Amino acid sequence: MRDLPAAVAGYGALRRAPVRRRPAPGKVLPSLEAAIAACGLTDGATVSFHHHLRNGDAVLNAVMDALARAGLRGLHVAATSIFPVHAPLVGHIRSGVVGRISAAYISGPVAEAVSRGALAEPVVLRTHGGRARALDLGEVRVDAAFVAAPAADAMGNLSGRAGRAPCGTLGYPMVDVETARHVVAVTDSLVPYPAVPAEIPQTKVDFVVEVARIGDPSGIASGATRPATDPLGLGIAGQAAAVIAASGLLTEGFSFQTGAGGVSLATAAAVGREMAARGVTGSFASGGITGFHVEMLEAGLFRALMDVQCFDLAAVASLGRNPGHMAMSAATYAGPHVGGAVVDRLSAVVLGAAEVDTDFNVNVTTRADGTIIGGSGGHADTAQGARLTVVTTRLTAAGHAKIVPRVGTLTTPGETIDVVVTEAGIAVNPLRPELADRLRHAGLPLVSIEALAAKAAAAAERPAPAAPEGRIVAISEYRDGTVTDVIRAIGEAAP
Amino acid sequence: MRDLPAAVAGYGALRRAPVRRRPAPGKVLPSLEAAIAACGLTDGATVSFHHHLRNGDAVLNAVMDALARAGLRGLHVAATSIFPVHAPLVGHIRSGVVGRISAAYISGPVAEAVSRGALAEPVVLRTHGGRARALDLGEVRVDAAFVAAPAADAMGNLSGRAGRAPCGTLGYPMVDVETARHVVAVTDSLVPYPAVPAEIPQTKVDFVVEVARIGDPSGIASGATRPATDPLGLGIAGQAAAVIAASGLLTEGFSFQTGAGGVSLATAAAVGREMAARGVTGSFASGGITGFHVEMLEAGLFRALMDVQCFDLAAVASLGRNPGHMAMSAATYAGPHVGGAVVDRLSAVVLGAAEVDTDFNVNVTTRADGTIIGGSGGHADTAQGARLTVVTTRLTAAGHAKIVPRVGTLTTPGETIDVVVTEAGIAVNPLRPELADRLRHAGLPLVSIEALAAKAAAAAERPAPAAPEGRIVAISEYRDGTVTDVIRAIGEAAP
Repeated sequence: MRDLPAAVAGYGALRRAPVRRRPAPGKVLPSLEAAIAACGLTDGATVSFHHHLRNGDAVLNAVMDALARAGLRGLHVAATSIFPVHAPLVGHIRSGVVGRISAAYISGPVAEAVSRGALAEPVVLRTHGGRARALDLGEVRVDAAFVAAPAADAMGNLSGRAGRAPCGTLGYPMVDVETARHVVAVTDSLVPYPAVPAEIPQTKVDFVVEVARIGDPSGIASGATRPATDPLGLGIAGQAAAVIAASGLLTEGFSFQTGAGGVSLATAAAVGREMAARGVTGSFASGGITGFHVEMLEAGLFRALMDVQCFDLAAVASLGRNPGHMAMSAATYAGPHVGGAVVDRLSAVVLGAAEVDTDFNVNVTTRADGTIIGGSGGHADTAQGARLTVVTTRLTAAGHAKIVPRVGTLTTPGETIDVVVTEAGIAVNPLRPELADRLRHAGLPLVSIEALAAKAAAAAERPAPAAPEGRIVAISEYRDGTVTDVIRAIGEAAP
Repeated sequence: MRDLPAAVAGYGALRRAPVRRRPAPGKVLPSLEAAIAACGLTDGATVSFHHHLRNGDAVLNAVMDALARAGLRGLHVAATSIFPVHAPLVGHIRSGVVGRISAAYISGPVAEAVSRGALAEPVVLRTHGGRARALDLGEVRVDAAFVAAPAADAMGNLSGRAGRAPCGTLGYPMVDVETARHVVAVTDSLVPYPAVPAEIPQTKVDFVVEVARIGDPSGIASGATRPATDPLGLGIAGQAAAVIAASGLLTEGFSFQTGAGGVSLATAAAVGREMAARGVTGSFASGGITGFHVEMLEAGLFRALMDVQCFDLAAVASLGRNPGHMAMSAATYAGPHVGGAVVDRLSAVVLGAAEVDTDFNVNVTTRADGTIIGGSGGHADTAQGARLTVVTTRLTAAGHAKIVPRVGTLTTPGETIDVVVTEAGIAVNPLRPELADRLRHAGLPLVSIEALAAKAAAAAERPAPAAPEGRIVAISEYRDGTVTDVIRAIGEAAP
């Protein structure tokens, strides 16, 4: 080393050290057990997961099994969504390995077990944006984020577009890898450096574990559907599209989100035809992206797709091919804390509902008997952000009325719902008289929400079940962390 | 709002609040002055800039003029690089608007003024990776990062591939936007939402200001050259390529970085021919990327380009077109703090030098008379990371010897330099006897570094100037923040 002064005015002491070459460290560990040890996880730790592999995911179960074998107890599972495939989690709840759960969406056996009181502590259901907020602001501290990666290299570059089970964007764990104390990538395709193209860069990943399989590709595509073709669904979709067409918002730069359900996609198709007829080019479509959205991009109906999750392989392929098809993180998508998220730029969103009440409140969390069947996901985020929020629903399902005096669980506040479209007419929120005027002028069949509720009650074959009165088993949080509702246990609580 | 309990066991108090719709906030401010006010900048604040617009950049000067008009003094300019176009900064130094400078590279009038003692406080010269480390670890706290954005939308999505002065990747400010207290995008192309494709997402940007022009596109391409064609340069390049070919590293998965100088690119061309002859597919080429690198990617010589900065429009076009051409942040590129950066995966790097000494230390910071002419940039980062570091240099330049007993400024430690290639032979670092054996077996003309120094001294037409003895005007920091050398004032210090 050179002979230098010990300190320099205006700089301070000069740190000196011998220089050594820096071979790149290896991040690959031989097993999930080794990764758990490397993360230093202890009882009560928070472990996070994402749901891009949807009902094909094998990573959450494999990691939870390894955590159980490691003897850990009372863990907090902070997932983005939990699906029927995650049924083994019920066993880990009963054995005490899992003590807490938070998620944006829970369906299947885990949801049923929670509804029956399997967990002593209430589940926290957040919106997608609310979960990103809770992580970014430190309200939830993740000790280890487990990222299911369709392909990874030894340095931790993670690709969603290569490997045996490509899922495209990794928008949800983008939030986790920024804030978790440790990040473990789990892959079944450990590829030569560098993984191409990388969704998450190596700087965000601490460890890489190769497993036999991260999931079932057929389950991964379970979010995808095609537009509805049944007359009732097509009718509702056509009316929803007519609402958008008459709203005054279907002009140059129009932006749009729908779910991936059949009625939503049929609505999008009808809106697309109207855009083409008017010569309108939209700015973006957002959310979970399907091949159907890709067709709209490629037809020039939108300039961009803002993609937090690919729902099918056509979307995965487009992401690599089309610069206008852009991945985004859950925070960018829906975070209420980021100074304006993508959802806050939406012209219109079309959403579903398990129930809607006469205050326009929407329930997508519980079914008629009170059992948990989902949660907001992006429902409440987009409803608040969009200038026009349209809920499409049939009057009844499984014999129960879907337009009701009071929703079983308030997931999305009625203040953020503008229009409810059913096969029996269209109800406009009284908070939006100017919108009602526009729709009326367009000749659309407006009715009051009370009239729809009355028709639904008349059409229902089964009475509304009594509201559950058990202890509180889940909390429904809004985007900003305020509470919209509590969910109570059904039937007998588990011991 | 629903009637809910005030608190829930296991969850705590329920926060409640009325729900309101969330219109997207506007981030567009009418002027740089408005942005400065919005950031709440005060005397002594740290403002940061990036150099993707290179010697065509108009943003740093415009922002500094606005800061001066706002009456601010003693500011710390934390730039990635400073070029001749930034000459007006000298006036801001003399007037007291600027009190401190840090950068990875400084050339032109600002460098000369610093060398003559214009600043009371020493300039801190960091490597690209060291700068990322200093920001990420909070050693440098940026109050406002000004990001020159070829295109931006009103929400702060920033694209380097659209607009009037496209520069491609925004790898350097990716670090700043993660850590700065405020981020201001400066653009001359405010495009409809969303900017496509976005290099930096809207969540990272607080304010957007539109200006008449962010820079001169012809200056932006000033980093780009074509491979050398002169006999001396071609000869050195051929020998450097022969060193790599004989090193044992030119096998499947080979990774490579060169600068964008003529000799470096000619070396890359020769290495590419050898790869093709051997049927070797490389893993990646990294660093600043030119059309020449793109040709190598498209010829199948490498699977990926890891691009921290596009040096020409051919690179910009490739970035949008080829999924194997990936942008990376300065931290991913070269950070010593990220658990393994891209440079740490390099098989070989070919670097230039202003001076090399008989301990293999390299100076790329000052010229023979001691005036600052640059700084490490990625030089010391790649030298430490690569398994083989080759420095190419002529024996003399401007009449001065370039192989010297002792470099004027130690930028890159000799421990990390393996081979020096000149027109008068090849010197291998005595720390690498096994490499010398390989090269000798390949019939390469090895000489001692002392012999090269003697030949350089004999060929020099001008004597080595005396080392400057003025006060310390700059500190050369290594990747990890230790100090490799100090730089002293030349001639008379400015008043």
